This record gives sequence, C-alpha cells and structure tokens, in this order.
Amino acid sequence: MKFSERVLAMQSSPVRRLLPYAEKAKAKGKKIYPLNIGQPDIKTPPSFLESIRNFSQDVIAYATSQGNNDLRDAMSSYYKEFDIPFEREDIIVTNGGSEALLFAFMTICDPGDEILIPEPFYANYNAFAGCVNVKVVPITTKAEEGFHLPQKEEIEALVTPRTRAILVANPGNPTGTIYTAEEMDVLADLAKKHDLYIIADEVYREFVYDGLKYKSFGHMPEIADRVVIVDSVSKRYSACGARIGCIACKNRDFMAQVLKLAQGRLCVPTLEQVGATALYSTPKSYLEEVNKEYQSRRNTLYNALKKMPGVVCAEPKGAFYVMVKLPVDDAEKFIIWMLEEFDVNGETVMASAGEGFYATPGLGKQEFRLAYVLNNEDLVKAMDILKAGLEAYPGRIESAVAQ
Amino acid sequence: MKFSERVLAMQSSPVRRLLPYAEKAKAKGKKIYPLNIGQPDIKTPPSFLESIRNFSQDVIAYATSQGNNDLRDAMSSYYKEFDIPFEREDIIVTNGGSEALLFAFMTICDPGDEILIPEPFYANYNAFAGCVNVKVVPITTKAEEGFHLPQKEEIEALVTPRTRAILVANPGNPTGTIYTAEEMDVLADLAKKHDLYIIADEVYREFVYDGLKYKSFGHMPEIADRVVIVDSVSKRYSACGARIGCIACKNRDFMAQVLKLAQGRLCVPTLEQVGATALYSTPKSYLEEVNKEYQSRRNTLYNALKKMPGVVCAEPKGAFYVMVKLPVDDAEKFIIWMLEEFDVNGETVMASAGEGFYATPGLGKQEFRLAYVLNNEDLVKAMDILKAGLEAYPGRIESAVAQ
Repeated sequence: MKFSERVLAMQSSPVRRLLPYAEKAKAKGKKIYPLNIGQPDIKTPPSFLESIRNFSQDVIAYATSQGNNDLRDAMSSYYKEFDIPFEREDIIVTNGGSEALLFAFMTICDPGDEILIPEPFYANYNAFAGCVNVKVVPITTKAEEGFHLPQKEEIEALVTPRTRAILVANPGNPTGTIYTAEEMDVLADLAKKHDLYIIADEVYREFVYDGLKYKSFGHMPEIADRVVIVDSVSKRYSACGARIGCIACKNRDFMAQVLKLAQGRLCVPTLEQVGATALYSTPKSYLEEVNKEYQSRRNTLYNALKKMPGVVCAEPKGAFYVMVKLPVDDAEKFIIWMLEEFDVNGETVMASAGEGFYATPGLGKQEFRLAYVLNNEDLVKAMDILKAGLEAYPGRIESAVAQ
Repeated sequence: MKFSERVLAMQSSPVRRLLPYAEKAKAKGKKIYPLNIGQPDIKTPPSFLESIRNFSQDVIAYATSQGNNDLRDAMSSYYKEFDIPFEREDIIVTNGGSEALLFAFMTICDPGDEILIPEPFYANYNAFAGCVNVKVVPITTKAEEGFHLPQKEEIEALVTPRTRAILVANPGNPTGTIYTAEEMDVLADLAKKHDLYIIADEVYREFVYDGLKYKSFGHMPEIADRVVIVDSVSKRYSACGARIGCIACKNRDFMAQVLKLAQGRLCVPTLEQVGATALYSTPKSYLEEVNKEYQSRRNTLYNALKKMPGVVCAEPKGAFYVMVKLPVDDAEKFIIWMLEEFDVNGETVMASAGEGFYATPGLGKQEFRLAYVLNNEDLVKAMDILKAGLEAYPGRIESAVAQ
C-alpha cells in the first residue's frame, strides 16, 4: 500500500523519536534526567482539577466550535491586562497551540505557498507545514549572534511571489531568544511591503528574564489586521496535557475563515475548557514565582554550560530552552551514546538532537536542545553528568566552533 | 489580506451554520426542538466523570502521542469482543473521529488525489477533504433505494488514476443505512483491484436496529492491510464533548506514518483519556438500553414522517438520523422559515439542510436531515409541529418526488 508524499516527507519528532532509547535505558535500571522535552515539573494550579471535579452535567455534550464564551472572555481579559486588545470575537479556542498553527497555515496557504521561519525553530512547524504542503523557508540565525535576526535585506531576499507569512516564536523555542522592538519593526515593515501575515507564536509570553520588557506582536496596531497570535495554556500554567490553546486575530474576515475549520472538527473538549477557564483566574503571583524559578534554572544551566570546554551557547533570555553547540561529531549519536553506553552512578541525561530544529540540510548536526524543566538540584547533577559524558565520548572533537 | 483557496472553497457546516437563526428565535422566547445536530440526550456513563474526579496528579502533563496504553488496551479488548482483531499497536488515539479522518486523508492522499464517498455523506468529510486539498468524488445514492450502493460497474466508472480510497460510514450518517455483506464485498473487490484503501467510519457500530447483524470492515481479513477504521466514543457513550476517538489499522507501516502526524500535535488531552478508558468498561446493558431507546425513537419518527403527504424517506436501519425529501421549494429556506416565522404554541423544530450532505451540485436541495436525539414524547410534539409547518409553508410544492 502506498502512502502520500506529504506524509513520507515528514520527519519523526526530534523530541520524541529517541524515546525508545530512553525506554531501553530505563528498563536496564538507568535513571534519566529528561531534558529533551518541554514538560515542566511545575505544579498545575489546583483550580484546573477543582473546577473539573465540580462539573456535574449528565451529558458530556459538544461545545461550540469557537470555544466556550466563558473561556474566550477569560482569554480576552488576560490579553487586555497585557494591553493586547483582543475581544471574545477575536479568539477561537483550539486543541493546544498545535491546532492554532495548523489552522493558521491552512487559512493562509495553498499547497506550494511559502512561510519564512527563523531557524532553529520548534520542530513541529515542519510537521504542520509538511502535512498541508506548505514550504518552510528558513531565515538562518546563529548561536554566536544569540539567534537574533539577520539584516532586513537578507530576510527580504528570501521573499518570493509564493511567500504568504512570517512565523516567529517569541520568546523562542528552542533558542530562548527575545526579539528587540527594532527586529519586530523590520518584520512588520516586510509584512506590510509584501502583504504577508505575521504568525506570532507567543506561548512563552510570561517566560522572560533579566527584567526585559516583553513586546507582543499584538502591541502593533499598524499591522493588527495581519497579525495572527498562536497561544496555549500548556507552558503558562504547566497544563500541557490539557491541550487548550487559541488562535487570535483582530481581522474578523480572517477569523470567519478559521471558524469554518473549527466547525469541521466540531469542538475542543468540554471539560478541558472548564479547567482552562479557571486557570486564567490564577493569581499573578503564581506566574511571578514560576518566572523566578525558571530564571534561576536558566542561570544554573547556562553557568554550567559556559564552563564546559568547547561548548558554545547563547544565554537564553526567555522560554525554558537552550540550544547548545557541542564539541562532538554528531549530536544525535552523542545523545544515543549517553543513553546506551554512558552513566555516572547509574544516571544519565537526555536531550533533543539539533538537526530537527533546522530546515537547512546539515545545520544543527552538532547541536542539541536542553529544556530546563527540572529543579535546580537535578539540573546541577544533570550538568555534571553531561560534562563527564562530553569528556568520555569517543566522537569528541576539539571545538564546536571549528566545524 | 488574502485567504487560501482551500479555505475559501470550504462551506460552513450545514449542521451549525443555521445556529444564528435558532439563537434569534430563542431570544424571542421560542422553544426549539433541536433535531439538527447529533447531540444525544442520553446520559454519559457516570464512570467518565468519576474516573476524572479521581485523577490526582499534580502536573497535567503531556500524554504519549499514540495515546495512553490503558486506553488503547481498553479499545483493543472492545474490538476483540466484536471479533475485530486490533491489538494495542494497531490503534492510535485521536481528538475524536474528526482527527482520525484528517489523519487518514493526509496519510493516504496528496493534493489532487481523489476519494470516493457515497453521498449523501457526513458533511464534514467535505471540510476535511477541502482543507487538505483532497477531491471528494461522490457515489450518488437515493432515498428511494434506501441509500444503498449502485451497481459495481457504476462505482468502478468513477475510479481514476488519482483515486486513493473509498470512504464509507456504516451505519450511515445522514442516511441510517447499513450496507449488506454483498455491498461490502463489492467495495473490497474494487479496493483490491484498484489498490485503494477503505476508510470505514464505524462510529455508530452499536446503533443497528431490527435485529440486523452488523458486519464491520474489520471482519474482512482479506483486505485487512487496506482497511482503516475511524472510531469515536462520542455517540457510543454519549460523550461527544470528550473528543476521544481513534484510528485503527492492521497495517503497521500505515500506523507508523500516522504516528508522525500524531507526534506533530503532541497528544490528546490527558484527562479525557482517563475518562474514556473508564467508558470502555461500561456494562453491555447500557448499550443495549441505548439501542432500544433509539430504535423506539426511530419508529416514532419514521411512522410520523410516513404519514406526511408528499414526504419521502427510507426507514433508517442504524445510526440516529433520517434523510427526508420534503415537498418544498428549498429545504434550507424552509428550515429558516420554521425558525423565523412559524411556531405551534411558541414551539418549532430545527433540522439540518440537505445540500451540505451532497457533493453533487443541486442534489439535496429539497432534503433535510433529522437527528432523533430527543425522547419519544418530544419527538411526537416535534413531528406534529413539522407536519403543521409543512402544511403552512408558502413554498410548499405538490410532492418531493415530482421535482
């Protein structure tokens, strides 16, 4: 039996495809520090489960395709506190940020259309694009430059008649980079000049460190009709398993098209919407505490990485990832070796191979992504193990930069 | 700002697009019998909410992309009781049957590829096909023939080099038709001869009346490598809002491709999977009671419709819908008129317009779909109102058949 070209062309998730190695290692009794996946250990606010426990309707019925009005109103209030002027009607609830991205791609692009994305990027952007035949055109950024954008001319040279949008994650996954207001202005100018959408993945909006002031693409009224925000409760409230996100845009014609897609899949789960509505009433102190915790973990991780010979990485300013260039022949081989052949007192570390975060062939081969989703004590141990692993690895080379 | 051709070509859901008229009618104090949507009034087994209430993990974490093993095992046991030999590995949990359909389309078809579907069909098949650029080629069936399939030659004439699959809902929505073993053999022969998949939407498997023995496409080992089953707990356990379904296939290479799509969207909600696992332990007596209830409702509805002058419909043998030809100029106009201008003692009836269930332009204009998801007492009242409405409607014509 044949399969479609689009599905054959899709890569397995770089975050998930090495899991079988981890499972085998665990089965042999190894303890693994899982820095491969953005699954926080932070407690979900108890209001999520409490509100669901209080749900008492006899029939678990369909919700509306747009999402519950209570939830959309809660989201609207949340945005307004951020000075992002989204009303209920500007918001459609989705199955996580994932579905919001898929809806954005489908609404904007026909097969063969192109989307510019700064690389390295969240690997599933490739998955979503591939399954709906959208071409990802990478804007290459570098660890040595903190993964900031190249000059305007360099980006503009990538625009073709098929280009339909620029997709940016801000704060960035896997980079932890926060774009400056100037970089955002450049993207806005290009979007206006070439009639492009800006799809802004802002699921890490609260995860901004060192006192930086965060600017959202929702803060730019001059491009409000072409800005599509992709959002999620997953990271904000450590509720990844709730799969509640949204797509939001001030352009009502755009939202009318998205609604057709939302109607096609009927609705998002009823109970998860009840829980997510409660999450939006979480006291701000929760997010402040979480921010402090991640900033402290970032420091732990970055300080340890800086001291490892041959390792190159930029200090992440947001989100909870760091993209690291390693003095190894092949980062994926190194990760597998760490799982299969290495341990310190029965413990090892797992990361995500870097290549899957790039669209340009060959890039990222020496890189991996770490997610700092464990407590500081565990991170210290994990970094000691990583350091020892890098020293012992047979495929070690002189320096990451030299390659 | 421009939108994609694929999204512009999508119709609004025929089941949901008339809702604004219903809302206005309700706002004026009219009571509406909602026969437009397949939202059962049957109580969801309490085990769903009970198991979720007992969930007590501190972090609402991602589940695996394939779905929880507990749930997949429960589904496997369920299938085996039906003599459908699906193992855990043959099953991936999805966001309702909706996502299972989308995954099947993406895995099988590239843009421009074709899928044969007997019409009238579940309207969202068009939505899923459209958003991933798959062409629906209808196999037209008729109320007068109980919506059974045409001769083999007639179906085969529709096969082109781009045909990749035949999609059938069995029992049928909106028709209530159950295919005979002979019809299934014809489809199996065509699938083998032309190397096609059979996508079998069997979400109404338990909703089979008059003592008919149900045959699943999962009962045909000679085509097991090309049969993809789409399933859902929505109707079976009256848990539409849970959005838990699955895609199942004995072809492991096929499932490996589907897994890439599942990894792209990370996972299905954690709590809903816990609830759905409990649903699969529901005593069989629940499904037997539900079957009896729907069969009785079917009788109520069909007996009332038979007596209405000029109305044509086939007796539905399964699911909980009936597709009805009406003696009216335009069924959608009639539905809107019923909502806006007609009532009996402040009450009226809502249906779904028929055209959206056909791919052939012009077909279904005089038809609507009724879902018998209300209790018998309400159905009797609703049919009295419908009868009176048909008599009073200014666009009434002599007979549905004459058109």
